[in-house]
Amino acid sequence: MPELRKDPVIGRWVIIATERGKRPTDFERIETKRGGGFCPFCPGNEAKTPPEVYAIRDPGTQRDGPGWRVRVVSNKFPALQIEGELHRKPEGIYDKMSGVGAHEVIIETTDHDHDTAHLPVEQINDLFVACRERMIDLAKDKRFRYIQVFKNHGAPAGASLEHSHTQLIATPIVPRRVVEELKGCNQHFDWKERCIFCDIVDQELTVGSRIVCVNDDYVVIVPFAPRFPFETMLIPRRHEHYFEDAYRGDFLSLARIYRETLGRMNVALGNPPFNVVLHTSPCNDWEAPRHYHWHLELIPKLTKVAGFEWGTGFYINPTPPEEAAQFLREAAVPAGPEGSQA
Amino acid sequence: MPELRKDPVIGRWVIIATERGKRPTDFERIETKRGGGFCPFCPGNEAKTPPEVYAIRDPGTQRDGPGWRVRVVSNKFPALQIEGELHRKPEGIYDKMSGVGAHEVIIETTDHDHDTAHLPVEQINDLFVACRERMIDLAKDKRFRYIQVFKNHGAPAGASLEHSHTQLIATPIVPRRVVEELKGCNQHFDWKERCIFCDIVDQELTVGSRIVCVNDDYVVIVPFAPRFPFETMLIPRRHEHYFEDAYRGDFLSLARIYRETLGRMNVALGNPPFNVVLHTSPCNDWEAPRHYHWHLELIPKLTKVAGFEWGTGFYINPTPPEEAAQFLREAAVPAGPEGSQA
Repeated sequence: MPELRKDPVIGRWVIIATERGKRPTDFERIETKRGGGFCPFCPGNEAKTPPEVYAIRDPGTQRDGPGWRVRVVSNKFPALQIEGELHRKPEGIYDKMSGVGAHEVIIETTDHDHDTAHLPVEQINDLFVACRERMIDLAKDKRFRYIQVFKNHGAPAGASLEHSHTQLIATPIVPRRVVEELKGCNQHFDWKERCIFCDIVDQELTVGSRIVCVNDDYVVIVPFAPRFPFETMLIPRRHEHYFEDAYRGDFLSLARIYRETLGRMNVALGNPPFNVVLHTSPCNDWEAPRHYHWHLELIPKLTKVAGFEWGTGFYINPTPPEEAAQFLREAAVPAGPEGSQA
Repeated sequence: MPELRKDPVIGRWVIIATERGKRPTDFERIETKRGGGFCPFCPGNEAKTPPEVYAIRDPGTQRDGPGWRVRVVSNKFPALQIEGELHRKPEGIYDKMSGVGAHEVIIETTDHDHDTAHLPVEQINDLFVACRERMIDLAKDKRFRYIQVFKNHGAPAGASLEHSHTQLIATPIVPRRVVEELKGCNQHFDWKERCIFCDIVDQELTVGSRIVCVNDDYVVIVPFAPRFPFETMLIPRRHEHYFEDAYRGDFLSLARIYRETLGRMNVALGNPPFNVVLHTSPCNDWEAPRHYHWHLELIPKLTKVAGFEWGTGFYINPTPPEEAAQFLREAAVPAGPEGSQA
């Protein structure tokens, strides 16, 4: 019999179609392949992007020239604009606001041909350092309430360029989903005097059946009530409100388990297109983050059923989380460039 | 400059990327084409579906045989199961429920080759009658709290069979999105003592720029803050809580404007895949529907950017609603089978 399961943080019910039990090979495979052509993110083409706003560079190299390891530029087609004042105004019964914000691209590597899962952990560490530095800098702008870090990989997941990159959008509002999670965290704390994410980590480590991988600092699980097959969540084991504060800036442990999770997803599901979304506490807001616990959501794009879910907020997941976790756990992950996964 | 706009019912902000202003031809066209092969929904193949639960038939014809105009059967691969008791139970900190429900398919026509947009209005009227009859019947089951009617058209929108059909799922919970709308409606009423949807209809008819089409009973608009390009909303002009009660069962006026809207979408966007979702008041609940106003959401599937939106609830819409409405309004809709659109 199918099961209805409730997300413990935001209270969303999903249908887990246990009888179908779709295995990785049951999904249509859309392997992310690499084409050719000109790439504005490759070294030597720095003049083809908007000016650099941040980079991790070799000593003595020049801004907007080669010599970088990770490079951050404004998005050439930004969703929001950095200039202008934040005006709120009515339009009859409706409400609107000027589209003030920032939209930046973090070029993860000089290597056009390798995905994040194949980069050295030191390189992924640099990617997270760049995210943190940009988040701290953008949060100084009091117009912004949230810095949304995300990654689209592969065209079906919304990527328009194949060279491995992460993006961030600074917004004058907190995204709806984060608001819902903040409310859920506060409600849980009011009642239990504990963090809901800490409770989740505790129960998942005890039960074990939804664990994908774990190290001293982080745990990756398939959530109890996921919307999508093979969706995973990467959670720090220590209670931390802000991604920017994670382990006082040492992201090596995070880089290792992030790469391992992507590697397991690639092996189990055949290099699928995917999205990663960082959920962290809002900036310029002292009230909200009391009980929040930052985490990453990783969503491989395997299914097409979308409009019904958009219209109802009601999701049907054809793969039980326990089975998805087992497939990911048992995937034979190749050793990384530095010869070690651990 | 881009604009942030707030949905007046559920308070969701979206980014309207006014500068990009994507026109219909800027989207990758995924025209819904018809293949061949065996179809279990065609007349003569009635034995290949689960047994008929309802049909509109010619006098003297037999259940599960030919002679029907609209036929409702259980979904062969149901998301929820009709048998069993509704158990709620904990799993540590988590909550789950047995997957009790109903999942039915409404075969809209005997004609394999024609989409809803090309059916006679009388046939579409029969489709809505079938929806109403099944909703009234299923609502007698006290385990159910909501009857979700929806349509997936074309494979990219989640349809697995091409013969024109609508579906319904009866669930023991109210879908999240409907709960949010009910809350928004109640909040608006508490403050204004008016229905928010009635206010929307009033303002849209006054302003005019987001109107797609209108008749005496219904209005179709591109909402002020839509998530997706060319998303539309079909709203009854009279305040009605329940779809089932609409105009005491006369759906001809609804059938006309529904077909016209689908026709305009097909002409303007090149027969795109799409989803339709009915939002109506919950059943077996006397409290909730006080101020709700049923409506249909029509969402053409034009964009791929999905995971970011799923992760954040934050949508970027590349086409301003006023432009989308104009394209749909100006689309040259062919006359229907009975020779008239009006």
